[in-house]
Amino acid sequence: MSLIEAIISKKAGYEVTAGETLTLKADLAMTHDGSTPLAYRALKEMGAEVKIPEKIVICFDHTVPPNTVKSAEFQKIALEFVKKFNIKNFHPGGEGICHQILAENYVLPNMFVAGGDSHTCTHGAFGAFATGFGATDMAYIYATGETWIKVPETIRVNIVGENPNISPKDIILRVCKEIGKRAIYKAIEFGGEVVKKMDMSGRLTLCNMAIEMGAKTGVIEADEITFNYLREERGLSEEKINKLKREAIKVEEGNYIKEIFIDITEMEEQIALPHSPDNVKPISEVEGLEIDQVFIGSCTNGRIEDLRIVAKYLKGKKVHKDVKLIIIPASKKVYLKALKEGLIEIFIKAGAMICPPGCGPCLGAHQGVLAEGEVCLSTSNRNFRGRMGDPNSYIYLCSPKIAAISAVKGYITNEG
Amino acid sequence: MSLIEAIISKKAGYEVTAGETLTLKADLAMTHDGSTPLAYRALKEMGAEVKIPEKIVICFDHTVPPNTVKSAEFQKIALEFVKKFNIKNFHPGGEGICHQILAENYVLPNMFVAGGDSHTCTHGAFGAFATGFGATDMAYIYATGETWIKVPETIRVNIVGENPNISPKDIILRVCKEIGKRAIYKAIEFGGEVVKKMDMSGRLTLCNMAIEMGAKTGVIEADEITFNYLREERGLSEEKINKLKREAIKVEEGNYIKEIFIDITEMEEQIALPHSPDNVKPISEVEGLEIDQVFIGSCTNGRIEDLRIVAKYLKGKKVHKDVKLIIIPASKKVYLKALKEGLIEIFIKAGAMICPPGCGPCLGAHQGVLAEGEVCLSTSNRNFRGRMGDPNSYIYLCSPKIAAISAVKGYITNEG
Repeated sequence: MSLIEAIISKKAGYEVTAGETLTLKADLAMTHDGSTPLAYRALKEMGAEVKIPEKIVICFDHTVPPNTVKSAEFQKIALEFVKKFNIKNFHPGGEGICHQILAENYVLPNMFVAGGDSHTCTHGAFGAFATGFGATDMAYIYATGETWIKVPETIRVNIVGENPNISPKDIILRVCKEIGKRAIYKAIEFGGEVVKKMDMSGRLTLCNMAIEMGAKTGVIEADEITFNYLREERGLSEEKINKLKREAIKVEEGNYIKEIFIDITEMEEQIALPHSPDNVKPISEVEGLEIDQVFIGSCTNGRIEDLRIVAKYLKGKKVHKDVKLIIIPASKKVYLKALKEGLIEIFIKAGAMICPPGCGPCLGAHQGVLAEGEVCLSTSNRNFRGRMGDPNSYIYLCSPKIAAISAVKGYITNEG
Repeated sequence: MSLIEAIISKKAGYEVTAGETLTLKADLAMTHDGSTPLAYRALKEMGAEVKIPEKIVICFDHTVPPNTVKSAEFQKIALEFVKKFNIKNFHPGGEGICHQILAENYVLPNMFVAGGDSHTCTHGAFGAFATGFGATDMAYIYATGETWIKVPETIRVNIVGENPNISPKDIILRVCKEIGKRAIYKAIEFGGEVVKKMDMSGRLTLCNMAIEMGAKTGVIEADEITFNYLREERGLSEEKINKLKREAIKVEEGNYIKEIFIDITEMEEQIALPHSPDNVKPISEVEGLEIDQVFIGSCTNGRIEDLRIVAKYLKGKKVHKDVKLIIIPASKKVYLKALKEGLIEIFIKAGAMICPPGCGPCLGAHQGVLAEGEVCLSTSNRNFRGRMGDPNSYIYLCSPKIAAISAVKGYITNEG
């Protein structure tokens, strides 16, 4: 039995196997400023009401503050939804990216997390079954509290070795290269000694990009690192932690359709080239490429651990004169920590533009749209053609460290 | 002789009178990310080169970071201009609003400041002749170093009395109400005991809104407050300060077409109602009006003095749940001071969204665009129909204090 089979079995109350379909109750259901109005419209068309207001989380993150009349209208409609159905878990613009908000406040091991955003797979990092749905499916979940799912087959990815230069982002880019799009509707189960030692921030980065391989979700066993996070960052009581520990799922021998081993010991830092997250090369093959913009943030790499690394490389330095550097903390909580630690001051002094917590330029709507021919180095998760602006602009994906060093140098490099 | 006649006479080297036209050499010439590409195109069409690169200041402020492919293209073209003509005084996105950058770095008394932005009149606060030009005129200035001007007639505005509740913004809104649009092509010379005691930040607020009355410029005599600012904020040497003092212009008996006296002693705080900055009423007449958004920033009220007042009213408070609060420091320098003083932390904790130094939502391009029916309370200078979004949205102008108090309450009020 794979981890995802075990999690779903526990939720279902009986043993399930990959390929089976069943109905599952959602423990958390989330939509953002982009998907809430669409789910609300579908709900109206069904003539339905919200059945599970206490399980719903609404976050404004995709275009905050509103960048157009249309996005302002969308937020107005979403706010109407929040009021009409008395949604208590509402996070307005500036509180952060939906996935960071879920991680900081709501997700627990063994939950079924249904999100109206493709990167909901992020929360597999808690040992939960978390996946993205379209707005109509989210409306159905809002109306009934449940939805059907097919239990995914599992690809196991074992990360081994040791290498202080390699970050979780380098690892997941390397995994994308390995798997390509061959994980459609599968779960990617991450494990191995490197993952065992990885902090929650890094695990969230890994699971976040499962969708880029077509996967239904990414997933990692909940362990002492998970429970420590829940204790220290989330303030869960010992009683609650102990209950979660008792219910924790350990997978001894998984039911995998494929098993991959990646040894990071000799690995170089990785870069995804345009126009696909699996078009990945070691940095030495793209080193020296001139850049026009650097974006540090997103649900992949906008956490405090990421910003600390960035600050280490920006401290006392200036952003290259031909480069726009945009840094966006993933949440208000991250922003306040960064303020307290003096990171924001370091960024501003270096010449960065700091935008309010949210998705920023990742989806090409505002806060760093690219002109024709421009090259952007980004810590986000997608570099599809035209995603951040002109169809003839170019997005390269990398780790926070590479982004920071390159912003100062004006070209892609790991030497700074 | 009015102050503006005296300044222009000094520049010209002979005595001029209102109504006269003459050619003047620019001491400073500025365009931003919106106007630079237009000036550059006009320059190309003239087949001309830049004659005065050392007097040119280029600032990116209108849409930073770029909000659309088009604005990204505009910045790319502006950057080409900067490189081609070796413009040293280049301020990329994140350094601040052009007028704040000019005030913090360049403007001196008796200068002729030509800016490719209507609010260039702001710099009259230094006892300079500062006014806005269209991009084609700016191209001519870039090519020749000079332009023709007609010496404006002067309306003298004397502000007297004492009232701790009244800010420079309240005063200028009250002046807008008094003058309406009847200052077209005139200079508005501000004086009286209140202006004599007012700091540079307040004087910049006054002169900034001269254009809203149709004026060619606003102007205030340089005095000890001006020289102190130049010494303390700009780091000018005593030698330079003394030279400026020797050259300072004092107007004993002005040549005015009209003289206005405003006593603030019994004055209420002022609000400009949609859709004109001169549609001004005392706050008691609009108190209680519900608001959807508050914007604190702009070349009118985004300085550290403004943010300190805002922090005083936001400290320990939460922004009303139905209100989006957007705060934008006018420059990187202001941002760094606000960081150091703990103001940014106060704002974030209260629930504000902080955008990078720039014009923000003032011109309706991004960072807080309004939906149909939405009401925005703003510390900026313009509330024309549709300026910040939908044609059926509503902008009310006010001081930073009123903006901060109202953001917490959810409606327009001065009681908080």
